[in-house]
Amino acid sequence: MSALPGVKALVFDTFGTVVDWRNGIARDAKTFLARHGRGDIDAHAFADAWRRRYQPAMEAVRSGARPFTRLDVLHRENLDGVLADHGIDPAGITAAELDWLNRAWHRLDPWPDAIPGLLRMRPKHFLAPLSNGNILLLANMAKRAGIPWDAILGAEAAQAYKPQPESYTRTAEILGLAPGEVALVAAHNGDLAAARRAGLKTAFVLRATEHGPNQTTDTHAEQDWEAVASSFEDLADRLGC
Amino acid sequence: MSALPGVKALVFDTFGTVVDWRNGIARDAKTFLARHGRGDIDAHAFADAWRRRYQPAMEAVRSGARPFTRLDVLHRENLDGVLADHGIDPAGITAAELDWLNRAWHRLDPWPDAIPGLLRMRPKHFLAPLSNGNILLLANMAKRAGIPWDAILGAEAAQAYKPQPESYTRTAEILGLAPGEVALVAAHNGDLAAARRAGLKTAFVLRATEHGPNQTTDTHAEQDWEAVASSFEDLADRLGC
Repeated sequence: MSALPGVKALVFDTFGTVVDWRNGIARDAKTFLARHGRGDIDAHAFADAWRRRYQPAMEAVRSGARPFTRLDVLHRENLDGVLADHGIDPAGITAAELDWLNRAWHRLDPWPDAIPGLLRMRPKHFLAPLSNGNILLLANMAKRAGIPWDAILGAEAAQAYKPQPESYTRTAEILGLAPGEVALVAAHNGDLAAARRAGLKTAFVLRATEHGPNQTTDTHAEQDWEAVASSFEDLADRLGC
Repeated sequence: MSALPGVKALVFDTFGTVVDWRNGIARDAKTFLARHGRGDIDAHAFADAWRRRYQPAMEAVRSGARPFTRLDVLHRENLDGVLADHGIDPAGITAAELDWLNRAWHRLDPWPDAIPGLLRMRPKHFLAPLSNGNILLLANMAKRAGIPWDAILGAEAAQAYKPQPESYTRTAEILGLAPGEVALVAAHNGDLAAARRAGLKTAFVLRATEHGPNQTTDTHAEQDWEAVASSFEDLADRLGC
């Protein structure tokens, strides 16, 4: 008996839900900062500062102030700002090095339970990311880490950033499914709420340390999501996989 | 030494190049026709007739006469026409059955050398279809047959049907690559010529029986494509994989 009866496709928030962005970005930022004589900067604080610019950058697209722009471009623009905030002039760094650091977002590691859980869910479900990451970012991440997606979906395929309703409904459309035959799996209540409003089913997976040891947000399911799980393996159990 | 130096991504025509559409469609058409008491119709001729409607249907999109429409929809419209041409009224058949036959395009088998060749090319290259098939069609096909794509690209991601130049250039853009860092692998000289005009590198793979035993088109490389191979395994050899 599945907690998500009638659901044929599972689509996944990625940053935070499938992969541990904070430690991944901090790892490569640490290398970069040391190379530039700035080992004094805390790499996790640098990662957090970079991530804080994520929502405002997408908001410019969501509001219509700028046309759809893929996340690699937004990350790269945000990187210039974060470096400047830390007293590092990006103009003094080679484009190749900046691109290497920007692609740290392509090199994030999955949480330990993510791939084992996905492998169990895959025989019975179509699996795809529904992330604000662009196709190349998500595909490179999957190729490096061995994440078994059936297709790379998300903001770039839908040409709309979450939580805009089109990001969810167009994803269902691409899948040839009614919204209610698709479930979003996410560690973020806000993302799930927007998916539910768009007609999708919802599954919350707790990621209690996405933002580090003192996380205060998304520490529990804030609505009666169709499934609530403590890990991808636990979710696979609840789906009868 | 690779025949395609500097090429980072290989993108593949799919119908005919990766999979054997003619025998796959004939297999499921045969089942369908027998069920409807029309075992007299030659299933391969039925497949050919269905395929003949493929280019004209896309041409309506390419010319701008209709907005971008995914191939599943065009195939379904074309199926009505092919059935009518064979004296079968599609209105008398359940939607579920028509959809099942339409999804024969999702259930095509790869040529025997395709997956072994792709598995050899994958460590050194990013692999994706660049097909006029829609994302769901290509992803279902890959999931069923185990085709190891890194992402599902093509007309739907690019919102343009081959051989329009945007189908090739937007694919390179999604990959974050210059057109010359991407090579199209195809069994069709016309597709390769359009890709070359758009700046991509080109690799011809001979599929001498795509159209059956008496095939007269694409029996050899008609230009000096950067690579010319007799199979995907031969192509892997030529790429030093």
